Amino acid sequence: MTRPGGRSARVRDAVHEAVVELLAAGEIDAAIPKIAERAGVNPTSVYRRWGTRDHLILDAAVTRLRATSPIPDTGSLRGDLLGWAEGVEASMRDRHGQILLRALVATLAPGEEPLEYLRARGDDLQAMIDAAASRGEPVPSVDDVLDYVLAPLYLRVLFRRPVEPGTGAQLVERLLTALPADPAPDVRRGG
Amino acid sequence: MTRPGGRSARVRDAVHEAVVELLAAGEIDAAIPKIAERAGVNPTSVYRRWGTRDHLILDAAVTRLRATSPIPDTGSLRGDLLGWAEGVEASMRDRHGQILLRALVATLAPGEEPLEYLRARGDDLQAMIDAAASRGEPVPSVDDVLDYVLAPLYLRVLFRRPVEPGTGAQLVERLLTALPADPAPDVRRGG
Repeated sequence: MTRPGGRSARVRDAVHEAVVELLAAGEIDAAIPKIAERAGVNPTSVYRRWGTRDHLILDAAVTRLRATSPIPDTGSLRGDLLGWAEGVEASMRDRHGQILLRALVATLAPGEEPLEYLRARGDDLQAMIDAAASRGEPVPSVDDVLDYVLAPLYLRVLFRRPVEPGTGAQLVERLLTALPADPAPDVRRGG
Repeated sequence: MTRPGGRSARVRDAVHEAVVELLAAGEIDAAIPKIAERAGVNPTSVYRRWGTRDHLILDAAVTRLRATSPIPDTGSLRGDLLGWAEGVEASMRDRHGQILLRALVATLAPGEEPLEYLRARGDDLQAMIDAAASRGEPVPSVDDVLDYVLAPLYLRVLFRRPVEPGTGAQLVERLLTALPADPAPDVRRGG
């Protein structure tokens, strides 16, 4: 007998992993019973937890993409952004990351799914920006970060253009250069 | 009896229109026979011309998106970019445009489809940039235009974030501001 929290987390991980494997195998239309079977869990548990296949795919994609690009706490906005963008870039150069991004975009299509999973990602970025603002650094908005850094990286993958190494860092520098009164590079790093 | 070119263009338009209507009606998986039936043409003509459903969807999406954002010849890079970005923004605020973008991205997924349709769009932008360079204006690369202007507009739609009026123009100004030795606004417009 294990703690419910521990079992719950294991079920989530197993189901997410099954989703990634099925997507990677080209089974983009795999339904919940098939996902549950692969994960070794009861379909009823999957329906109870996620409700619909779209919610499950969305949760799996955002959870995995979020895990591959954690936001570090380096003490400077530049360091935080560079660390995060490096993770996003690595994820976009990876086949599984590309598959998850495509699944995420496809799942967002049908219309009125709730976006709480995406909001969590925006909240992470907002927290990074708030911390930098409280240190007195000039800061962008979350929208600026999405426009300057995330959108170009994601669009390369969605349009099957190559993601060259260093793209993430280059995009972060663009964003920082556009900020009013941008501090000099590295001045605050590790501060 | 009409000229083959005229008939060919009419078939293409009718088939593209059928694709847009079926996609708009939520029939994202409509196969070629169904598309041909709606367009009132023989399925054989569709197979002969486009080969696969993916080629057809890609051609329809790129042709329509391209038609909604023609690149004007205003005599200045700023004017050309603003005119083009206005068209892209209008298309991304329009339900049909959003549907076509989603269809385009979904169709690019399966792997190794040829990208000549997208290349044509890149060639349009390159021609605009070359004309500006020949007038002595500082110019961005096509990749810069995609990163600064197209990617943020497209990603808003793909992630179901609103496209506010004026977003296209704001993104163009960002791009121009980032150019070395950016000429003052309107100096060359109409020149």
